[in-house]
Amino acid sequence: MDITIIGTGNMARGIATRALAGGHAVTLLGTDADKSRALADELSGDVRSGAVGDPISGDVVVLAVWYQALDDVLGRYAGRLDGKTVVDITNPVDPQTYAPLTVEAGSAAQEIAAKAPGAKVVKAFNTTFAGSLLEGRVADQPLDVFVASDDDAAKAVVRELAESAGLRVLDAGPLAVARQLEGAGYLHMAIQPGVGGTYASALKIVS
Amino acid sequence: MDITIIGTGNMARGIATRALAGGHAVTLLGTDADKSRALADELSGDVRSGAVGDPISGDVVVLAVWYQALDDVLGRYAGRLDGKTVVDITNPVDPQTYAPLTVEAGSAAQEIAAKAPGAKVVKAFNTTFAGSLLEGRVADQPLDVFVASDDDAAKAVVRELAESAGLRVLDAGPLAVARQLEGAGYLHMAIQPGVGGTYASALKIVS
Repeated sequence: MDITIIGTGNMARGIATRALAGGHAVTLLGTDADKSRALADELSGDVRSGAVGDPISGDVVVLAVWYQALDDVLGRYAGRLDGKTVVDITNPVDPQTYAPLTVEAGSAAQEIAAKAPGAKVVKAFNTTFAGSLLEGRVADQPLDVFVASDDDAAKAVVRELAESAGLRVLDAGPLAVARQLEGAGYLHMAIQPGVGGTYASALKIVS
Repeated sequence: MDITIIGTGNMARGIATRALAGGHAVTLLGTDADKSRALADELSGDVRSGAVGDPISGDVVVLAVWYQALDDVLGRYAGRLDGKTVVDITNPVDPQTYAPLTVEAGSAAQEIAAKAPGAKVVKAFNTTFAGSLLEGRVADQPLDVFVASDDDAAKAVVRELAESAGLRVLDAGPLAVARQLEGAGYLHMAIQPGVGGTYASALKIVS
């Protein structure tokens, strides 16, 4: 797969690391092309870099940015996400206080779907912390990746991406369940003080 | 502790089993007193039964009923929950389709707090399935019980109850986080087809 990751932060690094471990080609696009180049230089595998706004070569785009940056990215790529699998990993919180934000559309993912109606939006990776994605495992267990989408083909693509990277995928249902998924993502942050506060944990279904 | 459980279904049975295992006294109150007596007869320990509407002797009340039954229970106990620790375990879903319901107050727990302003409402046990509560463990790991409340003393009571029963407690924050907790509870139901569909799993934080 040819995977474009927009963002140069810790989540971009984590998801890029897993995608490369899965044998995929990764292009990192940052608002600062120097940052995306620097991140690409740190990673091993078929990895390239560029700037946000560059054409997107593949069919899978991961928006590895804060909720607050989505509008800017969607504006730059207006019409150019049509037909692509667009992965939303965000948890809508205030970046200063980490208080949860109420999203009128129900969830960030549904908001993206409304603003980029040609995109096949998949909610995923919003409950997995960046650090744990580097190895893909916590306590010797694979991370669980919960996916929600109205497009079964796009969901299958994200499943393949995550499973090839050694992760377990759990299907949460249609895109509307992104609301509950974002709730679970927030919960995973909220309970950090009780588990060491280092964002090193995993939210998992154990059975 | 003297714990009153309103309800005679599987969740009442699960929570009663854990509370009795923790050495607490349990009173089961059902709309059908025969049902609560039958359930009490099946359990071991300091357990009594009665009918919904009976006086509540202790300081802890678990509302082990469907979201749709809350109004009836709150109506019968109007004013009589003041000062008590009231545990809300519900996940607001349509009982026929299991589709999630939007609750205007933000969450069922906040709705209860608004309707019974004298009660110390604690959200808990909404991510733990009834069957797993019988043993308190899944895959040889204790269940995680996420708690949210605006009343620290009430939260501490629920922590003591759950920990004495062999469960692990994770503090999710104020009662407003019940919205996200209910999202996580729904997610745990939504992913069941991917893990066998038997509601035998646990939602856990692994680290």
